[in-house]
Amino acid sequence: MRKYHAWCFDLDGTVYRGEEPIPETVSFIQKLREQGAGVFFVTNNSALTPESQAEKLAKMGIEADPDEIMTSSVATAAHLLKVHGSVKVMMIGEEGLRKALETAGHTVVRQHPQAVVVGIDRSITYGKLADASLAVSAGASFIATNSDKAYPTEQGLVPGNGAFAGLIELATGVSPYYIGKPSVPMLEALAERHGLDRKDMVMVGDNYETDITAGIRFGIDTIHVDTGVTRTEDLAHYGEQPTYALKTLGDWKVN
Amino acid sequence: MRKYHAWCFDLDGTVYRGEEPIPETVSFIQKLREQGAGVFFVTNNSALTPESQAEKLAKMGIEADPDEIMTSSVATAAHLLKVHGSVKVMMIGEEGLRKALETAGHTVVRQHPQAVVVGIDRSITYGKLADASLAVSAGASFIATNSDKAYPTEQGLVPGNGAFAGLIELATGVSPYYIGKPSVPMLEALAERHGLDRKDMVMVGDNYETDITAGIRFGIDTIHVDTGVTRTEDLAHYGEQPTYALKTLGDWKVN
Repeated sequence: MRKYHAWCFDLDGTVYRGEEPIPETVSFIQKLREQGAGVFFVTNNSALTPESQAEKLAKMGIEADPDEIMTSSVATAAHLLKVHGSVKVMMIGEEGLRKALETAGHTVVRQHPQAVVVGIDRSITYGKLADASLAVSAGASFIATNSDKAYPTEQGLVPGNGAFAGLIELATGVSPYYIGKPSVPMLEALAERHGLDRKDMVMVGDNYETDITAGIRFGIDTIHVDTGVTRTEDLAHYGEQPTYALKTLGDWKVN
Repeated sequence: MRKYHAWCFDLDGTVYRGEEPIPETVSFIQKLREQGAGVFFVTNNSALTPESQAEKLAKMGIEADPDEIMTSSVATAAHLLKVHGSVKVMMIGEEGLRKALETAGHTVVRQHPQAVVVGIDRSITYGKLADASLAVSAGASFIATNSDKAYPTEQGLVPGNGAFAGLIELATGVSPYYIGKPSVPMLEALAERHGLDRKDMVMVGDNYETDITAGIRFGIDTIHVDTGVTRTEDLAHYGEQPTYALKTLGDWKVN
């Protein structure tokens, strides 16, 4: 199996499940750290800041610098800056999105925005959805941190950001620009920030339709692990296959 | 022009626009009342009770018995009763929906419902949407009062019930059963309640895709008025045409 210099890990379903670490991944990452390989994290979760994600990982025995953690919120803020410069942005979202937008120099406003950014918001109100729809209809750019239509909780699948972005799309007839996996802006932003070369990078994830697809679209190698959404036996349903398919990272053989 | 015994009027865009009565419709209805014709109202608005709609009409000079007003909420409650009997129902919606369900003998519950009913709810929360998604995924019947994706306000188009039902559909993969126009359950319930014969009925409305389509699907004559959503000149884009197309009901000629 190949040697990679920049390992990009999905989080939920790959490094942990909810609050439970996946031990094979944790010890694999610890080994990579000892060997001095680059370790990065790429998550569609827009609610947490990189700092809070780093704290969560630290509790599981994984050291990570917030700079090594790319969230869909941070990539959204970076995308806006690249395409439009600093903008007035109307936001539906939680702390992770607000911090990311403000850190990148954008101004969060309640009316007349140049862009409407939608991330998961567990304090959603009708007024927020109406204001966002009116702004999108009035011509503001419409960006969604990620397209996940649902996400798993202990109770079962609950609505994800893709369902809320979909609501605004239904109300306005305008489709959002999606930042998270399976789109590539997060991998792009990480590569730019750390000067990574595609040929040195590998994307590790449990979800074919987000993690593996993002890796394939970005043109890097991919490793599927059978610890979350997509079962190994279901990979055959998809066209392009991941470079490697493992039960867990415990099966990774160093040549 | 034909003589009809049972006139079914859409409300918003046909009888009034928001709080503004449309004078030609108001005086036309007053004439119908004088002649002793049957006058009924058929609205996708699930938020108001028939009683509050009757009060709103009274202020505009139109007398109406709550029994003559069919709302998507009342038809939803009647549909549930017909198909499932009295059920435990989880509700997203406002006063009109709650009253309709309770009046029909259903019990509004917060967990383990047999049916999930979704109407417009301007006090929507993430918790309500999550609970509804979990119940639909667990197998509860999924019914939406109406499929309007947006509705007009003074500020512009804001999300309608179809967008919220669409959110739950995106999150769960389950499509709702829609009660309101362009579906026929409201006209069906009205005909049953008042013993109306299809050949005596006519549906009057401004919106081809809801009012006129519901009339056509129900197999009754239709009258399009150019006082709301669909412009007369745009009717040609559609297949089956309304029986009559008028600028306003002021143009209705009695033979």
